[in-house]
Amino acid sequence: MSGLRITGVTITPVALKDPPLLNASGVHEPYALRSIVEVHTDAGITGINEAYGDDATLALLARAADGLAGVDVFDLNELSRRIAAAVGGVEASSPTELIGAASGDKTVAQAVAAFEVACYDAQGRATGRRVADLLGGAVRERVDFSAYLFYKWAEHPGDYEADPWGEALDPDGIVKQARRMVDRYGFGSLKLKGGVFAPEEEIEAVRALRREFPDRPVRLDPNANWTVPTSHRVAEALAGELEYLEDPTPGIPGMAEVAARTELPLATNMCVTGFEEIPEAVRLGAVQVILSDHHFWGGFRATQALAGICQTFGLGLSMHSNTHLGVSLAAMVHLGAATPNLTYALDTHTPWKWESEDVVAGGGLRFVDGAVTVPAGPGLGVDLDRDAVARLHEQYLTCGFRRRDDVGWMRRVRPDWTGKRPRF
Amino acid sequence: MSGLRITGVTITPVALKDPPLLNASGVHEPYALRSIVEVHTDAGITGINEAYGDDATLALLARAADGLAGVDVFDLNELSRRIAAAVGGVEASSPTELIGAASGDKTVAQAVAAFEVACYDAQGRATGRRVADLLGGAVRERVDFSAYLFYKWAEHPGDYEADPWGEALDPDGIVKQARRMVDRYGFGSLKLKGGVFAPEEEIEAVRALRREFPDRPVRLDPNANWTVPTSHRVAEALAGELEYLEDPTPGIPGMAEVAARTELPLATNMCVTGFEEIPEAVRLGAVQVILSDHHFWGGFRATQALAGICQTFGLGLSMHSNTHLGVSLAAMVHLGAATPNLTYALDTHTPWKWESEDVVAGGGLRFVDGAVTVPAGPGLGVDLDRDAVARLHEQYLTCGFRRRDDVGWMRRVRPDWTGKRPRF
Ligand SMILES: [Mg+2]
Ligand SMILES: [Mg+2]
Repeated sequence: MSGLRITGVTITPVALKDPPLLNASGVHEPYALRSIVEVHTDAGITGINEAYGDDATLALLARAADGLAGVDVFDLNELSRRIAAAVGGVEASSPTELIGAASGDKTVAQAVAAFEVACYDAQGRATGRRVADLLGGAVRERVDFSAYLFYKWAEHPGDYEADPWGEALDPDGIVKQARRMVDRYGFGSLKLKGGVFAPEEEIEAVRALRREFPDRPVRLDPNANWTVPTSHRVAEALAGELEYLEDPTPGIPGMAEVAARTELPLATNMCVTGFEEIPEAVRLGAVQVILSDHHFWGGFRATQALAGICQTFGLGLSMHSNTHLGVSLAAMVHLGAATPNLTYALDTHTPWKWESEDVVAGGGLRFVDGAVTVPAGPGLGVDLDRDAVARLHEQYLTCGFRRRDDVGWMRRVRPDWTGKRPRF
Repeated sequence: MSGLRITGVTITPVALKDPPLLNASGVHEPYALRSIVEVHTDAGITGINEAYGDDATLALLARAADGLAGVDVFDLNELSRRIAAAVGGVEASSPTELIGAASGDKTVAQAVAAFEVACYDAQGRATGRRVADLLGGAVRERVDFSAYLFYKWAEHPGDYEADPWGEALDPDGIVKQARRMVDRYGFGSLKLKGGVFAPEEEIEAVRALRREFPDRPVRLDPNANWTVPTSHRVAEALAGELEYLEDPTPGIPGMAEVAARTELPLATNMCVTGFEEIPEAVRLGAVQVILSDHHFWGGFRATQALAGICQTFGLGLSMHSNTHLGVSLAAMVHLGAATPNLTYALDTHTPWKWESEDVVAGGGLRFVDGAVTVPAGPGLGVDLDRDAVARLHEQYLTCGFRRRDDVGWMRRVRPDWTGKRPRF
């Protein structure tokens, strides 16, 4: 097995249909962009992965890919070094402002993640091992996910196919959505994407969920759309009601102010999304839970380093999700299985995907009782459906969307919309 | 390769001759104790490692070994879980007080380390990969070590074979020792084990080393044998002269007091030797460099987690050594090669070993220009010399030493010796 060197990389942008999910920035566009990464080796083995698919990411990945020929898929340090050298100078960019401020280090981390996971898949295919095994072994064979509830319109503005979920613009709509999602997927915990309506309405929605699902932990995530005083008010109103409160307000100092006056654990995938932000957050006690995400933390090894930091400093560890396909789901499952202190149910957008749309052969991993079983095959345990990739690539070519812009899409309906936060 | 499950474990205690090296506790005994760990698998592959060899460690390892049958050598999380379950209740113990206070977590970590490294060796042998590759890839093919200088007597009290190094009890003796060690091994940096004589004498020894080797960084390690005021005095006297000052004084608060008044980086392998001690050390700014040691931090993966913490919190990372044989040296080299921010030259006791005494076939890895090249073979890249293991095991059986006791051995010469620290 001495030869497992990268001979080339294929990056295929794809677009999947996305419902009009509302958030603090605005609303999801009708298409979400992803890319399928394939790392080819001189052993004839190809490792796969899934990354963001916006223009800036595609340019970043193309630039990073240029320097990878000859790297051994086990030599992840060399992979990181080459990528940092290739993209270190590019402008910091982020596929969405909903995962915090961009930085040079985070931009490198995103590029490393895109290829590192594919290298792990190749390692697994070469050794006959699951990625979870290569990451230290599965501590759980079933990885729990949380229902991810969104306020939403029934349909996108314009001529787009409506999703089957219908409208949800009040507590009743959210409870109905949750019921449908729980019945279909069996999720044991619930997360409401907030920051959309006045906090009092969202507090009511949380209370309605708690009444309907008294045994299920509930999280609320307004994506930093509240001021510190508003955050204090909501935290007081929901004391004891939430598993955690996610990113109530922008920035580490603001989060620290909120944390100082509530017993609710504060979680984040906005103010701490890179290692550079951890020391200040620890010093100020700003957050109690960090949402990992291998896509932007820098891959599996970086996420394991994050897990070690959380373990050491007494922070909880959860997992964030952006709209994704089945390769990312498989990666999340392997990482979730192999990370002992990842004890919160993971976020996933999977239910919002059209069931007919995935790039994974067989349609993707299944949820049973809210959990996904670690696939048994080598590597990530999923294979690409070439026809499906071609279809979603064709959809990418024709859809016209090239970067995520929740603010701009909301402006079609509300021309005065700025997306400025905090709004409440 | 689906079957690589542990079928049994062999632990062989060995004793190697050790010179009368002086330290804050007392003096090394004539024999140092180690153990050779072999992890056998159902694939017929055996992974090897080296651990401490004192009675308490042997009891710990035997207890841990009982629960390991059936564990896949890739499933390091399960290995850790089984070991924690097996030894979680045993009394906290440490093979020497010179690596800080014992704790339950550290005791588990020592046991995990003993077997985890052997599992990595087995993984490498099974996949044809070097351990450095399995740890993320070698960022350096040559790993630099530091000369480890000791005050010492010419001979042990009693009837023991004298070592070839002679006496070193003053600056002149230390410089001669350094010259001989540098000429023989090519070390590019120097570490003096202090805490033996009055600080003024040790300051003079450092200055003599600096005069003789102006291009080589020098470290001084009094093993917490100084009060805070003494530490302030020495730090002031040696400002700008040391690469780092290692454990001048006991405890994190004391180290923080010293750190607050010197620009010299403070290093430790005494006040931070487990993850539980890191938060306080970070909060107080007590140390600037942590000396890793996979033997007591919990193995390779734990040391990588430590490296991630150091990287994140702006701490330097170095590596500690106790008296060891060639399997430990190989493990240190692989880990050192695969850890990007391990930028300080590593400690090693190798030169103090009788050249005729090693357990590794071919006599062990060689130093060229102070560095060891990562061995090319699979796993750790070293094999056991069965005859040598048998000889050193026989020496273990006959030597009569069963636990390290630097204080007790010093008492043979100085009956009033207490080993109490800080003495200066
Ligand atoms: Mg969030
Ligand atoms: Mg030391």
